[in-house]
Amino acid sequence: MATTQRSEDYQKVSEEPHKNVIKNPYGPNPGDYLSNVTSFKIIESTLREGEQFANAFFTTEKKIEIAKALDDFGADYIEVTSPCASEQCRKDCEAICNLGLRAKILTHIKCDMEAAKIAVDTGVDGVDIVIGASKYLRQHPHGKDMSYIAKAAIDVIEFIKSKGIEIRFSSEDSFRSNIVDLLNIYKSVNKIGVTRVGIADTVGCANPRQVYELVKTLKSVVSCDIECHFHNDTGCAIANSYTALEAGAKLVDVSVLGIGERNGITPLGGFMARMIAADREYVLSKYKLHKLRNLESLVADAVEVNIPFNNPITGFCAFTHKAGVHAKAMLANPHTYEILNPSDFGLSRYIQFASRLTGWNAIKARVEQLNLDLTDDQIKNVTGKIKKLGDVRALNIDDVDSIIKNYHADVHTPQVKPANGPSIPDKDEVLLDSVKKPRID
Amino acid sequence: MATTQRSEDYQKVSEEPHKNVIKNPYGPNPGDYLSNVTSFKIIESTLREGEQFANAFFTTEKKIEIAKALDDFGADYIEVTSPCASEQCRKDCEAICNLGLRAKILTHIKCDMEAAKIAVDTGVDGVDIVIGASKYLRQHPHGKDMSYIAKAAIDVIEFIKSKGIEIRFSSEDSFRSNIVDLLNIYKSVNKIGVTRVGIADTVGCANPRQVYELVKTLKSVVSCDIECHFHNDTGCAIANSYTALEAGAKLVDVSVLGIGERNGITPLGGFMARMIAADREYVLSKYKLHKLRNLESLVADAVEVNIPFNNPITGFCAFTHKAGVHAKAMLANPHTYEILNPSDFGLSRYIQFASRLTGWNAIKARVEQLNLDLTDDQIKNVTGKIKKLGDVRALNIDDVDSIIKNYHADVHTPQVKPANGPSIPDKDEVLLDSVKKPRID
Repeated sequence: MATTQRSEDYQKVSEEPHKNVIKNPYGPNPGDYLSNVTSFKIIESTLREGEQFANAFFTTEKKIEIAKALDDFGADYIEVTSPCASEQCRKDCEAICNLGLRAKILTHIKCDMEAAKIAVDTGVDGVDIVIGASKYLRQHPHGKDMSYIAKAAIDVIEFIKSKGIEIRFSSEDSFRSNIVDLLNIYKSVNKIGVTRVGIADTVGCANPRQVYELVKTLKSVVSCDIECHFHNDTGCAIANSYTALEAGAKLVDVSVLGIGERNGITPLGGFMARMIAADREYVLSKYKLHKLRNLESLVADAVEVNIPFNNPITGFCAFTHKAGVHAKAMLANPHTYEILNPSDFGLSRYIQFASRLTGWNAIKARVEQLNLDLTDDQIKNVTGKIKKLGDVRALNIDDVDSIIKNYHADVHTPQVKPANGPSIPDKDEVLLDSVKKPRID
Repeated sequence: MATTQRSEDYQKVSEEPHKNVIKNPYGPNPGDYLSNVTSFKIIESTLREGEQFANAFFTTEKKIEIAKALDDFGADYIEVTSPCASEQCRKDCEAICNLGLRAKILTHIKCDMEAAKIAVDTGVDGVDIVIGASKYLRQHPHGKDMSYIAKAAIDVIEFIKSKGIEIRFSSEDSFRSNIVDLLNIYKSVNKIGVTRVGIADTVGCANPRQVYELVKTLKSVVSCDIECHFHNDTGCAIANSYTALEAGAKLVDVSVLGIGERNGITPLGGFMARMIAADREYVLSKYKLHKLRNLESLVADAVEVNIPFNNPITGFCAFTHKAGVHAKAMLANPHTYEILNPSDFGLSRYIQFASRLTGWNAIKARVEQLNLDLTDDQIKNVTGKIKKLGDVRALNIDDVDSIIKNYHADVHTPQVKPANGPSIPDKDEVLLDSVKKPRID
């Protein structure tokens, strides 16, 4: 016989809702106590790293135009090429400092006292110094050993600090460096009081969990902010940047379209896509996302490249939904297959219904847009005709609209059978002359 | 007074080298016991996911050409559009099955018995079934509740299994699904004996550490292989794929250039870049990387897009080094700034020395290529001239070569000063007429 259970046999469960429930499954992980996912800053380096892009040659006027656009977008910092690179680079750096932008202007130099003096004289708000620390880079480009690195860095840092401006110390190729050497030198420069330290994946090969470990370890050694710089040779720059923020980094280096050495660094647009998914409110409060497309066009034109077809956000099909089941769901609720809202970027969503993969829900929506009156069965019928033509060749919207309109005319016109007259061709067949699609870049 | 220390005061340290030393800092993490970073497989989905790309319309002939090229490249599996999508799609699926390729042919269907029967009849080596599991997808596209999902899935799986071919069960939008529901259903389908289970980031927003956690948890629940499918809306598809392998996933869905719904999925080329950095030997033993460029061109032409300028590996500047310090180091040792070896892909490295960011080491290398004889001081001098012109406008190789050759002629020709004759213009200035650079796509 079953025993009657009494409510007091069970432990009481509080009815209060959990306070730490994550509403956004893509939001910051509450286990990352040091995370800056909701408080990051960007160091926009189109005018420094971007100038190292194979195709880049920026005139002074173009640099000023880009700097103003970056400032308007909301860049926290704008980094420009070393004034030691050439005489014009020095003048350009001064000119950008004199624009009176809201963004802070940084320049990026080798760890060298002469370079530091020239940099400080341009009027920048801060100097980013960099030195090679991995065994590869110690052997080759700068040719310095670790104790020399530490000594030279300290002199340069103290000089820049004495000028009352920001100073960042970064190693190059941090992920192939000896971790003990690396932490030692960061600890030393932190003690002298640098504004921030930087880590750089100069060859573009770090992976996210490696990044998390290194940044977390570094965070336990320094009290200043951590900046990170990721090249994109193996396609992980955006993910690595995000993971660095989770581990406690505060600043991320980006450039418009990611332009830089080789195939570049973390792209501004893709990074914005990543971050808006994590904290929409923060991103919208700081950055004018609807200016992203113009900013990308400005830079793409300046360096003579096209926006990649698959670019995050601004790629021509970033918000285009095609398969029948996707289209159906998107029409019911855009969140189903979309984590980004195109209107945040001043862009529109598009349902690509002109293909053999279309479904009757997508065609129904189009019938309604065309203000035509068809039953569901009729729509399923006309969808079959569209898919049939879509099996023969690529379709465009005009094709689909014609099929729908012809079908609509047929079902709403009293049938008159021509007696012995010439046979009227099936209206679908009229559409079979190929329509050239424009090549999309 | 110091006590004399005897060797027996200390614990003996074995002199044997550590067996688990990681030689490649970017290689697999020995802490990931379940990692498949060195034993992964690819499911190439250009002919399924790729057909959902806005621009895609593949004729039967083009599908066959692409399937053969994918097979030749070394794809483990080739996934094709559901035979239920249209009559021609069904015929194309059969045609590809009949090619007798080494790669296994899969098709991808909704979890539905009618669809399963049609799929099995095409002669595929396996069927991938998918069902929406997140609350968004449960409300909208398929409209099923969890118990219905489980029941329907089991019937379909048992039917496909009875035909002796591979069967994969995947949820859609796995990262927004209820984890308990998700694990329950995976556990059930594993028990019936599916070949593998799949997780899919259908909206393209998962981040790497999330992926690691989910795959690792799933790995503890199922004994079959795990496949993963990542969309690239927030630029993390490659990193997420890598991290999934670290956590124990075995198979990654890719497509050529990443083409698919919206801005697509993990791109084959970028994924190869990521994986060769982790285990070069494995990747070279399985995939014909030197065929990557032609494969990408084939697909790019078929869907009428250009290879993105910043594409991993095949982007026009993926192996181009520009800044002076980079060029100097690369000339001494290519590993300094390069983790990928362009010759693995049948491609070449390029030092971009024609800009104001150039350095004298890069120019020295060019002088040697030109078979000219200049001292280091002379090379530093001519480098100054090149940087000066580079401050005025974009340079190309011809510009630099002319400056070098003119300088060389000058220093090797006895000076003859024209007496009262017309002044000879500085040879650098002759070069100032702008040279049009081709637009690079």
